[in-house]
Amino acid sequence: MPRDVLEKRLIEVQLALGRAGIDALFVTAEDNFRYLTGFECPTWINAARPRYCIVPAKGDLILVVPTTNLSATRVTTWVQDIRTWVSPNPQDDGLSLVVDALSGCVKKGGCVGAEMGPQSRLAMPVGDFLHLREKLSGIHMVDADGLLREIRKIKGPFEVEQIRSVAGAASRALARLHSTMAAGCSEVEAVRALQSMLLQEGVDQAPYVVAESGFGGYPALQMSPSDRRARDGTVLGIDVGCRRLGYFCDFNRNFAFGRVSDRVRRIDDVLWQATQAGIRAAVPGAQVGEVWRAQAAVLDAGLSDLQARRSESGRMGHGIGLRLTEPPSIHPSDTTVLAPGMTITIEPAAEFEIETPTRSARRMLIHEENLVVTEDGPVLLSDRAPRGLLDVH
Amino acid sequence: MPRDVLEKRLIEVQLALGRAGIDALFVTAEDNFRYLTGFECPTWINAARPRYCIVPAKGDLILVVPTTNLSATRVTTWVQDIRTWVSPNPQDDGLSLVVDALSGCVKKGGCVGAEMGPQSRLAMPVGDFLHLREKLSGIHMVDADGLLREIRKIKGPFEVEQIRSVAGAASRALARLHSTMAAGCSEVEAVRALQSMLLQEGVDQAPYVVAESGFGGYPALQMSPSDRRARDGTVLGIDVGCRRLGYFCDFNRNFAFGRVSDRVRRIDDVLWQATQAGIRAAVPGAQVGEVWRAQAAVLDAGLSDLQARRSESGRMGHGIGLRLTEPPSIHPSDTTVLAPGMTITIEPAAEFEIETPTRSARRMLIHEENLVVTEDGPVLLSDRAPRGLLDVH
Repeated sequence: MPRDVLEKRLIEVQLALGRAGIDALFVTAEDNFRYLTGFECPTWINAARPRYCIVPAKGDLILVVPTTNLSATRVTTWVQDIRTWVSPNPQDDGLSLVVDALSGCVKKGGCVGAEMGPQSRLAMPVGDFLHLREKLSGIHMVDADGLLREIRKIKGPFEVEQIRSVAGAASRALARLHSTMAAGCSEVEAVRALQSMLLQEGVDQAPYVVAESGFGGYPALQMSPSDRRARDGTVLGIDVGCRRLGYFCDFNRNFAFGRVSDRVRRIDDVLWQATQAGIRAAVPGAQVGEVWRAQAAVLDAGLSDLQARRSESGRMGHGIGLRLTEPPSIHPSDTTVLAPGMTITIEPAAEFEIETPTRSARRMLIHEENLVVTEDGPVLLSDRAPRGLLDVH
Repeated sequence: MPRDVLEKRLIEVQLALGRAGIDALFVTAEDNFRYLTGFECPTWINAARPRYCIVPAKGDLILVVPTTNLSATRVTTWVQDIRTWVSPNPQDDGLSLVVDALSGCVKKGGCVGAEMGPQSRLAMPVGDFLHLREKLSGIHMVDADGLLREIRKIKGPFEVEQIRSVAGAASRALARLHSTMAAGCSEVEAVRALQSMLLQEGVDQAPYVVAESGFGGYPALQMSPSDRRARDGTVLGIDVGCRRLGYFCDFNRNFAFGRVSDRVRRIDDVLWQATQAGIRAAVPGAQVGEVWRAQAAVLDAGLSDLQARRSESGRMGHGIGLRLTEPPSIHPSDTTVLAPGMTITIEPAAEFEIETPTRSARRMLIHEENLVVTEDGPVLLSDRAPRGLLDVH
């Protein structure tokens, strides 16, 4: 991570801490930790050893990391003040060092900001978090996740390029998958082929790969691939969250095998148009609710004649960045105003009943694209899906 | 997940809750959630939507899940009592439903067990967890992660087979990588080739892939692969945590390029022998500290003549299962006694200084294998690494 990018972030965060009257920020989650320090290491999957980042409102960052992470910390961050302990240590997994570090920059009666708010996750045991609160007696602990989200929602040029790069790689891999996919393939076979293509195209990891298929649509597009084979009339949805240098893309494609009904194709087309409307609405100054309403209007107008309806899945898109999904939620209850540098997904969904060869079933179709808001309007980061289901012959 | 496996687990957990005087268990973390319900869905990477599992000490499981997870919950679990809400909802992300569910099975003055102890992670915002504690006024909240770990540390035949299967796939892929690796390849090239092979061999995901190389050894074996190319004298370590049907394997291999010194080869051989000693010591009835000491004895006896030393990385192995690393830690401070069905890694490490062509550098070498403790003694799950570095010509 370039040093000037990190220094700019640190200044911005420290100014925000000052404005909020917070004396120090206490961070454990991978995305915030990486955003603040550049720390890059696959170690996060290992819950045996936590790590802690302390950002005083004034002064230098302090990292408290297990000895096993010392080398990665030195190589991937610019932080000078690195404190280590031999972990795992169930009696004291770095907590004394954290108390020392926080006590050094927060006076009695002062305030520590932690990751506590909606969509946050603590990357340490909650028992230790409660102990820490007790040990910091006289020091107030408040949520600072919102403060970080507020800064992080605007991506700098470096970040936009990372997301563009990973979304480009995923776009190429999905296009290659379409051109090589064979009638009768299974969900697992399609996903295994895709995963190899994703790696070849430059993706570091594809930690989120969902594939669901069914006659005329899928149940929810939430599950791992199964051995189910595509038959005549199957629609296979594949949704991928890929990562490169820490940054995610997140979008899907829908593949059609053999004779898929005209009704399903028309529902799919309404989704394509809703996506188009969502993309067009993603201009600076618009509330995210307007992007939601632009999609909802197309869906509501187009789906009822097709005995289909807008799916109530809580939102029609979300932020992307160092997490697969970040705030804002594309929903009227979210008051975020779009600004240049915000990277979001547009994600309309429809549901409907269908008669399969054997039974009545509820089906969904979902579209998703990734974009960045610029001063000149929305710019796609994923390659726009062609209009119409991706037919496999 | 077979229904009888899940029913047996539920009975065991409910008996333990009864013995501990806990009226209900409150679970959010992926591994515990999956262990108790069979729920299988890649949705966990998305922090926007939490999900909750409530296990009364008597009676049926209750799941509180976002509407988007309803289909996956119905398909992958046997749970009848599924309660849903439209998420994300920053005002109330399922919390009211959780309070209702817990209030239904815990009386005032009663006790709820939550995931709070060492190595645990809460898969919900800590702010919501604190709200939940407040709303459950008159109900005591205690750590129950230890109780779950105690049950989960003994793997049933179904679980051992899953770990054997994924470790077998990773073993085959690493052997294929060795036979196809070329002198001068980069860390990234080696890992990309390996990732494709892992998928071909039947791994679902390889979420943990670490690769580090250097002259005569690596700095720590903790980092993602870089573009560094293997030159004459390079040792490349690759450590993989692979997943299949939720279960992990976790082991590494060391590749040698060109002329690696006799000293480094002898250090590597001490590690191979320490691994052998650790495997042999993993018999039912032994404390994990004995497995640590068996490895430490070989390392301490063999390394000093080579101007090398045992690495103080906190432990020399750990449990594996639904997490990449689980308790116990193979360390004298961990009092766990080995029993049939426990799946662990044996992981000795050595560190030493070396003169590279340009400078003095600190290097490490690590070995790791996976095994299951049986009544007849240890049985390897990974294919035993051949003795000696894996030379690449």
